[in-house]
Amino acid sequence: MRIGMAQINVTVGDFAGNKKKILKTIREAKSLGVDILTFPELAICGYPPEDLLFKAQFIEENRQSLRKIVNSSSGINIIVGFVDFSKDMYNAAAVIHDGKLVGVYRKIYLPNYGVFDEKRYFRAGSECPIYMIGGVSVGVNICEDIWYEDGPTKDQVDSGAEIIMNISASPYHFGKGKIREKMLSDRAVNNVSFVAFNNLVGGQDELVFDGNSLIVDHQGQLIARGKQLEEDLLIADLDVAAVRCARLSDLRCKKGLSYSKDNQWRNTKLVISKVQLGSFKPSLPKRKLKLLSLNAEIYDALVLGTHDYVVKNNFQKVVIGLSGGIDSSLVAAVAVDALGKNNVIGVSMPSRYSSAGGILDAQLLAHNLGIRLQTIPIEKAFEAYFEILADTFRDTSPDVTEENIQARIRGNILMALSNKFGWLVLTTGNKSEMATGYTTLYGDMAGGFAVIKDVPKTMVYKLVKYRNTLAGNEIVPISVINREPSAELRFQQKDINNLPSYDLLDPIITAYVEKDRSLEQFISSGIDEDIARRVIRLVDASEYKRRQSPPGVKITPKAFGRDRRLPITNRFKG
Amino acid sequence: MRIGMAQINVTVGDFAGNKKKILKTIREAKSLGVDILTFPELAICGYPPEDLLFKAQFIEENRQSLRKIVNSSSGINIIVGFVDFSKDMYNAAAVIHDGKLVGVYRKIYLPNYGVFDEKRYFRAGSECPIYMIGGVSVGVNICEDIWYEDGPTKDQVDSGAEIIMNISASPYHFGKGKIREKMLSDRAVNNVSFVAFNNLVGGQDELVFDGNSLIVDHQGQLIARGKQLEEDLLIADLDVAAVRCARLSDLRCKKGLSYSKDNQWRNTKLVISKVQLGSFKPSLPKRKLKLLSLNAEIYDALVLGTHDYVVKNNFQKVVIGLSGGIDSSLVAAVAVDALGKNNVIGVSMPSRYSSAGGILDAQLLAHNLGIRLQTIPIEKAFEAYFEILADTFRDTSPDVTEENIQARIRGNILMALSNKFGWLVLTTGNKSEMATGYTTLYGDMAGGFAVIKDVPKTMVYKLVKYRNTLAGNEIVPISVINREPSAELRFQQKDINNLPSYDLLDPIITAYVEKDRSLEQFISSGIDEDIARRVIRLVDASEYKRRQSPPGVKITPKAFGRDRRLPITNRFKG
Repeated sequence: MRIGMAQINVTVGDFAGNKKKILKTIREAKSLGVDILTFPELAICGYPPEDLLFKAQFIEENRQSLRKIVNSSSGINIIVGFVDFSKDMYNAAAVIHDGKLVGVYRKIYLPNYGVFDEKRYFRAGSECPIYMIGGVSVGVNICEDIWYEDGPTKDQVDSGAEIIMNISASPYHFGKGKIREKMLSDRAVNNVSFVAFNNLVGGQDELVFDGNSLIVDHQGQLIARGKQLEEDLLIADLDVAAVRCARLSDLRCKKGLSYSKDNQWRNTKLVISKVQLGSFKPSLPKRKLKLLSLNAEIYDALVLGTHDYVVKNNFQKVVIGLSGGIDSSLVAAVAVDALGKNNVIGVSMPSRYSSAGGILDAQLLAHNLGIRLQTIPIEKAFEAYFEILADTFRDTSPDVTEENIQARIRGNILMALSNKFGWLVLTTGNKSEMATGYTTLYGDMAGGFAVIKDVPKTMVYKLVKYRNTLAGNEIVPISVINREPSAELRFQQKDINNLPSYDLLDPIITAYVEKDRSLEQFISSGIDEDIARRVIRLVDASEYKRRQSPPGVKITPKAFGRDRRLPITNRFKG
Repeated sequence: MRIGMAQINVTVGDFAGNKKKILKTIREAKSLGVDILTFPELAICGYPPEDLLFKAQFIEENRQSLRKIVNSSSGINIIVGFVDFSKDMYNAAAVIHDGKLVGVYRKIYLPNYGVFDEKRYFRAGSECPIYMIGGVSVGVNICEDIWYEDGPTKDQVDSGAEIIMNISASPYHFGKGKIREKMLSDRAVNNVSFVAFNNLVGGQDELVFDGNSLIVDHQGQLIARGKQLEEDLLIADLDVAAVRCARLSDLRCKKGLSYSKDNQWRNTKLVISKVQLGSFKPSLPKRKLKLLSLNAEIYDALVLGTHDYVVKNNFQKVVIGLSGGIDSSLVAAVAVDALGKNNVIGVSMPSRYSSAGGILDAQLLAHNLGIRLQTIPIEKAFEAYFEILADTFRDTSPDVTEENIQARIRGNILMALSNKFGWLVLTTGNKSEMATGYTTLYGDMAGGFAVIKDVPKTMVYKLVKYRNTLAGNEIVPISVINREPSAELRFQQKDINNLPSYDLLDPIITAYVEKDRSLEQFISSGIDEDIARRVIRLVDASEYKRRQSPPGVKITPKAFGRDRRLPITNRFKG
C-alpha cells in the first residue's frame, strides 16, 4: 500500500489558495500512484483559525472547499482536516474515497493548554471508527489524539487497525522533534502497527509548524521523514503483511486483536473498498533526510516564521534598525535568508552615544549581506526634545527618561519609513530583554514582527556563529560578536551594569519563565538570593511591556504571549 | 436565618491584603449576628489568577490563607472561594463551620469562552453536596454553575436545598445585570428556593466585576441588592419557613423534593450543625438601593476599572494628553472621579494643525476639573524629524506618515513625563477608533491604560453629557461636544473624511465585532455595500494594532482582547 503525506504550508482563512494547493497535490499524488493521501489538521482553513470559527461564512467556505476536494478525488483515497459543523463544531478529518465522502473522524482529545484553546471552539468527538481500505485496516486520528497511550490509537488498533494515520498541526519548539519521534515510535511498537504522522508546515503569527512528518513501522523503525521546515510530499510503500505476521507471532497482539471494550468511545468499522491496493507500481526512489542540527533547526524556524509572517500579511520588504550589535545583526541575517537581500533595508541611526565601532560594524554587516543601508542621525530630534521639555524637566537629573527618548525617536523614524514606503519594521529584542524589560516600549520594541523575541541572548550568539560557519566566512563581523553588549543610550553604558551576565541570567529566566521555579528553589539550588530576587522582580514587572510587544517566532517550550498568560495587575511575589 | 454576602474588592496575588480584608469582614459579620457569611469566587487569591495557578508557591499561599480564615471563624459559618489542589486543581468553595473546614464544593461548569479560560486550569467537580446548617438545607455552587437550569442548583434542590448560595466572579458588561437578575429569579421560582448570589467587585486588568450581589426569594422577589461597583456587606434575614410552606403547597415542589436521580453528579448530605440559627436578633435596618441608569453604570465601571488598574499597579498619578476633543475630555473626567483632581495631570501638545478652539477647550476643561495643565508645543520636534528625514523622503508627497510622526512625538513626550515623574499615561482612543485602526500605534495608543477603548464614539458623547448633567454644570465644555471630530494631524482634517459618520459606523462595528455578522448580512439588512465592505476591511486590517494596545475596561458584551481572539495573519474576507 502506498501512502502519501502532503506536508503543505497553508494560510489561515485563505480558502481559495489552500484549496488550490490541495488540489494540485492530489493530482501529483495520483500521478505517483498513491493509494491514500493525507493532509494536515484543519488544512482546508489553516491552523489555528481562532475566533474566525465563530463566523458562519468561514464555516461555509470551509464546507465548500471540502466539497470541491471530494469531487476531485476520483481514483484515490484522501484524508484531510476540516471544520465539521452540525449543531456542534468539531475538529475533524474527512475520509474521502474515489469522489465520495465516506467518513468523518472527530478529534477526541482537544488541547487547551500552552498555546492551545481548542475547548473554546470544539466539542470532543465520541466515535473511534476504523476504515477498511483495499483490505487494509486504517485508523485515522488527529494531533493530540495520538499523544495519549490509551487514546484513540490503541482503541483503533484494538478494533483491528494496521495503520494509524495521524494528521497534525503540531507547533515547533526546539527539541520537540525528538520527543515526537520517540512518542510515535512507542505508539507503533506498543500497538504493533504502522504510524504515519502528517504535520503541517509554515508560520502563523507566533507559531511555526515544522513539518518533519514521520512514518514509523511496527518495530519502531523510521521508514520516512518529511523535510523539516519546508513543504514536502512524503511517499512510502507500507508492507502491511509484515504487521500481520508480527501480530500473529506476538502475544501482545493477540491481546490487542481481541476486542477489549474498556474504552469510552464507540467503535465502528467501515468497509470503504475491498479492491486490493498497492500492486504493480514502480518502486519509489530512495531518499535520506539528515536531521538538522539544533542551531540549524532554530535558525530555519526563525527564517520560516519571518518569511511567512511578512509574505502572508502581504508585505514584500522589511526595514531593520542596525546598531552594529549582535541582536540586530542576527535579525538582518534571518531576514535576508527569509526574503532575499533586495527586500531588506538596514537603517543606521547614530546618536551622540553611538560607538564608532558599532556604526562601522553596521556598515560592514550590510555590506556582507548585500543589503541597502540608510543612515539617519537622530541628534537633531534628540536636541529638539530637550528643548521642548526643558521647562518641564528643569531641576531634574538625567535618567532612563533621556535614554528612552532616543529609542523612541528611532522607533518613530522606522515607523515613518514603514508608513512612507510600505516596509514592515522588524524589531530586534531578544528573549532575555523581553523577560527583564531591558527594552524600550515604543522604542526598540516598535515594529510589526519581533523575530528573536523568544531567543535568549546566549542563544543569539550561537545562532550568529552558526550562520557565519554556514557561510564559510564572516557574515556578521567578528567584532560584533566580541563587543560587550550595550544599548548605547548613555555614555559608556554596558548591559552588565544593569543586568547579571547573560550566562547567569538566561538559565534563571528559563527556570522562572518556562518552569515556574520559585525564589526558594533558586536559593536552594545555589543561586545568589539577591540576583534571583532581582531577576524575578524584573520579569514580573515587565508584563505590561510584553503585552504591547509585536508577535514573534516561538522557538522555546514556553514563549511569552499566549503560551504564558499572566495578569498585569498582580501582587504575587514569585 | 441571617446571611451575609461580602462583596469585596480583592487583588490578584495579594494574599496578605486579601486575607486581611476577609478577616476584617468576618469580625464585622459576627458583630452583626450573621449566621452564614459568603465571599466571592476565588476571593482568597483574586480572579482571574491566570497562569499564576501554575506556580506551586501561589497554591501554597492560597492554602495558608484558607487555614488562617478557618481558624478565625469560631461561632460563624463561612463560604469562601479558593484553589483546591490535590492531584488535580479545582475552582472551589470552602465550607467552614465554627473553626473547622467541613466541606469543599468544586465548581462543575467551567467557562471556557469569551474572556474565560477555566478549562486551561481546572478540572470539573463531580459532587453536588448539600449542607445542613442549623436545620436549614444549603446548596453551595460557583458562578457558571447557576447559569444552567439543569445544573447543580436543581440537583441541590432535588436533594432538599432550601437556600442556594452562589459565589461568583461575574465580569461586567452593560446590560448584564438585568440578564443575571432575570436568570436568578427564574432559578429561584423554578426551584422554589432562596437564591443568594455573591459577586466580586473591582477591576482586574481589562475586567470590572460589578458587585450587584442579589438575594431572591422563592417567588422570584428581590430581597436585597448589593451596591453596584462598590464594596458592600449585604445582610438579609431569610424566612426559610416560607420556602417550606410553599413547597408543601406546590406540586412542582413535591416533584422537586422527591429524589429524582437523572443528574450526573453524586449527591451527599452533610449535617454541619443542628443548632437552630437566626433567633433573637435585632432586626436589620431597611435599605433600598436604586439601580444605576445605563450611563451611570457604564461611567462608574470606567471609574472603578481605572482606579483599580492605577492603584493596584502601585501608581498614584496619571497623565493625559488633552487635545480639547471629546475622547480625552471623557478620559480626564473619569480619571478625576477615579483618583482625585490632584492626581491627574493634563498635557496640551499643540502643533501647527491644532485649532485654537481645541487648545482653549483643553484649558477650560482642565480648569473645570481643577487639574494641572502643562503645555508642551511639539513644533520643534516635528521640524527636526522633517530635517533628519529630508533626504530619505525627497521626491515623496506628504501622507499619513507625517500625521503619525506628530502623534508619535506626543506619545514620546507623554512617556517621557511618565518615565521622569512616575505618572501612568492614560490613552484616549475609543472603540470606534480601535476597531477601524483610526489611531496611531506608538502615538495616541502609547500608554499604560486605555480607559475608553471599549466605548464606541456615540457612547462617548452620551457619557460626557451624563457627566455634565451629574455635575449640574459644564464640566466638559459644550464646544467640545459640538465640535466636529478631528484628529488635527493635517490641515482641516475631519474624521468624516476618513470614516463613515459615527452614527452609521458604530452599529456596523457592533454587529461585525460582537455578533460576527457577514458582509452579505449587512447588505441584505440595507447597509450600503461599499461602506460595509470598507468597515469590515478596516476592522480586519487593524488587528495588528489592537494586539499592541494597552489594556482597558471591558464594558460591552464583546471587547477587543481576549474576548475576541483573531489571528493577525488572516486572509479571510468577512
